[in-house]
Amino acid sequence: MEVTRKNYKDSLSTVYSAIEEADFLAIDGEFSGNLVTVLAEMPMEMTSALCHSMDFLLFQFGLCTFKYDQTKSKYITKPFNFYIFPKPFNRTSPDIKFICQSSSIDFLASQGFDFNKVFCHGIPYLNQEEEAQLREQTEERRNQQANGVGTPSFISPSSSKGPAHVPEEHKDFINRVVEKVEALFSNSEKTLDLDPCTGFQRKLIYQTLNWKFPKGLHVETVETEKKERYIQVSKVDEEERKRREQQKLEREQEELNDAVGFSRVIHAISKSGKLVVGHNMLLDVMHTIHQFYCPLPEDLQDFKEVTMCVFPRLLDTKLMASTQPFKELITNTSLAELEKQLKENPFKSPQVETTERFPSYDTAQEQLHEAGYDAYITGLCFISMANYLGSFLTPPKAYISARSKLIEPFFNKLFLMRIIDIPYLNITGPDLQPKRDHVLYVTFPKEWKTSDLYQLFSLFIIYLLVSFCNSLRKHPAMNTSRYAESYKIQTYAEYIQGKEKEKPGQTAKTWGEDGWVKSNYTSSTTSGFGYPRYAWTADPSVFRCSILMRKRSISPVQGAQGTEEALIADGWSHYSYPDSTGSKKMKTDGV
Amino acid sequence: MEVTRKNYKDSLSTVYSAIEEADFLAIDGEFSGNLVTVLAEMPMEMTSALCHSMDFLLFQFGLCTFKYDQTKSKYITKPFNFYIFPKPFNRTSPDIKFICQSSSIDFLASQGFDFNKVFCHGIPYLNQEEEAQLREQTEERRNQQANGVGTPSFISPSSSKGPAHVPEEHKDFINRVVEKVEALFSNSEKTLDLDPCTGFQRKLIYQTLNWKFPKGLHVETVETEKKERYIQVSKVDEEERKRREQQKLEREQEELNDAVGFSRVIHAISKSGKLVVGHNMLLDVMHTIHQFYCPLPEDLQDFKEVTMCVFPRLLDTKLMASTQPFKELITNTSLAELEKQLKENPFKSPQVETTERFPSYDTAQEQLHEAGYDAYITGLCFISMANYLGSFLTPPKAYISARSKLIEPFFNKLFLMRIIDIPYLNITGPDLQPKRDHVLYVTFPKEWKTSDLYQLFSLFIIYLLVSFCNSLRKHPAMNTSRYAESYKIQTYAEYIQGKEKEKPGQTAKTWGEDGWVKSNYTSSTTSGFGYPRYAWTADPSVFRCSILMRKRSISPVQGAQGTEEALIADGWSHYSYPDSTGSKKMKTDGV
Repeated sequence: MEVTRKNYKDSLSTVYSAIEEADFLAIDGEFSGNLVTVLAEMPMEMTSALCHSMDFLLFQFGLCTFKYDQTKSKYITKPFNFYIFPKPFNRTSPDIKFICQSSSIDFLASQGFDFNKVFCHGIPYLNQEEEAQLREQTEERRNQQANGVGTPSFISPSSSKGPAHVPEEHKDFINRVVEKVEALFSNSEKTLDLDPCTGFQRKLIYQTLNWKFPKGLHVETVETEKKERYIQVSKVDEEERKRREQQKLEREQEELNDAVGFSRVIHAISKSGKLVVGHNMLLDVMHTIHQFYCPLPEDLQDFKEVTMCVFPRLLDTKLMASTQPFKELITNTSLAELEKQLKENPFKSPQVETTERFPSYDTAQEQLHEAGYDAYITGLCFISMANYLGSFLTPPKAYISARSKLIEPFFNKLFLMRIIDIPYLNITGPDLQPKRDHVLYVTFPKEWKTSDLYQLFSLFIIYLLVSFCNSLRKHPAMNTSRYAESYKIQTYAEYIQGKEKEKPGQTAKTWGEDGWVKSNYTSSTTSGFGYPRYAWTADPSVFRCSILMRKRSISPVQGAQGTEEALIADGWSHYSYPDSTGSKKMKTDGV
Repeated sequence: MEVTRKNYKDSLSTVYSAIEEADFLAIDGEFSGNLVTVLAEMPMEMTSALCHSMDFLLFQFGLCTFKYDQTKSKYITKPFNFYIFPKPFNRTSPDIKFICQSSSIDFLASQGFDFNKVFCHGIPYLNQEEEAQLREQTEERRNQQANGVGTPSFISPSSSKGPAHVPEEHKDFINRVVEKVEALFSNSEKTLDLDPCTGFQRKLIYQTLNWKFPKGLHVETVETEKKERYIQVSKVDEEERKRREQQKLEREQEELNDAVGFSRVIHAISKSGKLVVGHNMLLDVMHTIHQFYCPLPEDLQDFKEVTMCVFPRLLDTKLMASTQPFKELITNTSLAELEKQLKENPFKSPQVETTERFPSYDTAQEQLHEAGYDAYITGLCFISMANYLGSFLTPPKAYISARSKLIEPFFNKLFLMRIIDIPYLNITGPDLQPKRDHVLYVTFPKEWKTSDLYQLFSLFIIYLLVSFCNSLRKHPAMNTSRYAESYKIQTYAEYIQGKEKEKPGQTAKTWGEDGWVKSNYTSSTTSGFGYPRYAWTADPSVFRCSILMRKRSISPVQGAQGTEEALIADGWSHYSYPDSTGSKKMKTDGV
């Protein structure tokens, strides 16, 4: 179901009841830009860096609700596709600026994305603080219009009780208004429409009329079709005045709710406490919190706490698919590929049915990168994997519910795309602290290409295989090669030490043009974490030798869902760095 | 005529010949955001501040050509409406990030703007440097593919002549490729399609094949529909090989031209040397230079020089309308109002006719804020005003050409919206240096509202009228009021002195939330510059007393074309500042 500003209010009760009855929810977001490259070695750095990517806009939000029907033995789904846009509510509401990345926009365009639905008909939203501010403003304006002189402001010359101060050049104008209103009292007309005027003049009119005619009038600002604002004055008795005030209050309340807009859906998801499933969902979670709840805290612990407030139970299908027992069976964890593989043996296609009035998605006709569709197939992936876990039970079970104990080990662990030896961010506990003794940090001239690194390391690789990393640093072979002057090799500990010293003057980890990208020289899947019984430990017996290198940002096709190979397709091209050292950095995972 | 990526190449010759035959050109741009608020006292600060607003995207460019037809005694117009988008040309081309401002987007949406035409079908572009880089890259790749070993790079281990170093894990792959190619030589097939592979593998294949089979082969990368790249090897004799190389070269050349895209139109405008007319065109000029020519220099003198390179002859109709003899006759210089007023006595509606195949605009059905339409009516305004100047001649002339001496005084002077006493930026000469002895700089608590300032200044205003500013600073009245501790009044000279001291640690003038906006307390039109005989002097005999105050950014309706009154419609609302002093700043123009 497509939801825009046009049908949003009418759809809200459908959305609420779909959430309420669901067994679990799946979500997905589409953004105006894509942070594909972050330089990070630890989750703390990762989330802090991602915070800076919140300038992109989440402009399409997919929600698919899944409810299990026991009698039919299938899930009933309700997919929603919300278009989101921060349309300013009024002149004083925040005028959001957001960044668009041309590659991301171009990618969505190639997928048939309808930008007019976002920009012309997107549902507005406010975060909690903005909502509170708006309520306060409305309250304040109401008070001002009610008592004329406004709420007293700190050491304000106008805070004295009494008639409003009317600047000299407005006196004629205000006097004419007063004359017209006096005439209204003596004639048979019920209402008087004043000429359109400025906000300041309207303020003066409110103040003056409230002061001069405390009873018998209802004063209200009306907007013409041309968006010009004028004041309408009506003769009313006390009962009528109260009724009008009440109407106005209700109208204001409704306008406020409209302004809070899409955030109400997020509140409903949050309040439901339902399991929320996503695929590679860290950025979706961060953007959702940032836009609809509160500005993202940079501190990792604070971030985890806020996340638990908004999404008390999360499950990331990319992480699940990368974990035992799935990792041995699944070669490609990109959403599209995962969905295909989970239809094949030993997995089973989940039985689902889309409710009437909802468009049913056909997974044979891929509609990837429409958020509603992506949320839908994310849910399907979750069902397939959950049910597969049932096959380990005695006797085996074909249906595993979203409340099953079997799924709990996957809760609240979000896949970390760019950190090779820390597979996930643990929202409800401490993060893994992998040993980094075997990691080297290499600095080399920016003219070097990947092939140069291959050559350089081919000199060391035999040595690395027979020696162990703790002796690496001392060995003379490290610095006797003919390139010795142009590069530098450090242990990870040395690198971190050096970095700590640099910190005060440096603000390196902003979202930027470059970061760590895994090369195809190795595979991250060689770093294992064990199964069965959901033990999450790094397996030190697995030999790892990987090279990570910074490279320029890449197109979303590759970054988001592409194959590993694509990532270094142009790894050997020239590029320069924003850092002042003028050199590239490379990290190598030794024995 | 609407021009997108779809019909761009076919339209180019039409565009070129329209520019070539024109008497003058009118331009207009639509942006993804609108810088309405800049804190600036001088043109230097203004342009430097505006430089920071170049993160918005000019995504619709209007061009209307005007050619005078002597026989018909009317202008023949050709309006073009170009949609622009920086679609990345390839994986290594710049991935532009640009800012969208929700109020601007919402405003354009309300005017029926088609965002899909921009984002899905916008014409790409490159500035001069990007174009040069791309040409270099293409050249380099061609060399690499031709000689296999690549151009030697600085202290690169792979720069030695000889066979490519093939990393161990790719050796099997490459050997299989060599075997296949050897088989090709011995069988009857003409071409061999290799499997899709990574960029690195393709590089290895090029290097190996060029080394092993220097003759008799044509090797080329081909892309499948799924955007997978594979290598096609063809058996060819020398003649065929050369023909294919030539074809490839031509194809690359065409792709390059496509990537340069819309910048070619700007080059054509520039090269023509024709008069380019715009309305309030400073931002249009700046964005055009920045996107299609070179990054904008922050230094004012450099900016002027670059501007003269790209647009050797400019005329701003807003400045023209604000100047004698027009300023006395024209009350509102916003484009829509100006166009209407210039149809009335003493002006005459210009006689125009739109060429066949071009949609003719009807000024009765306003299509404001479509760039092509805005350019069209800007041209109409210019014609009306130019012809009006002819009425001063003896004998009067009804038609004044774009080459007339009468128009020259208006050349290369761009309207400055936000600087009250400097009406224009003089592109081809030094800027006006108005006296600032009579300007006060006031600091006051952020809780204050405009009405508080009115009250405060009503205490001084009588004093100001009889005294003169040079004694102001010393007078005890200034600091004896009951608010004395909460505000500060400085002469402009003192303020500038203090600011100079602050400079090193401060980067105040970024595009931001706030800036100087004229209040409705006074009118800028009281500062006059004389006519006739085009003398551009400030008239010191005019009494001026104005208050300028910083306020939060406002919607584009008000900022771009709105009335002065609208600007302070919410001037009395609360707002806070990013600066650390926690106070607002106000400037007052005294006697």
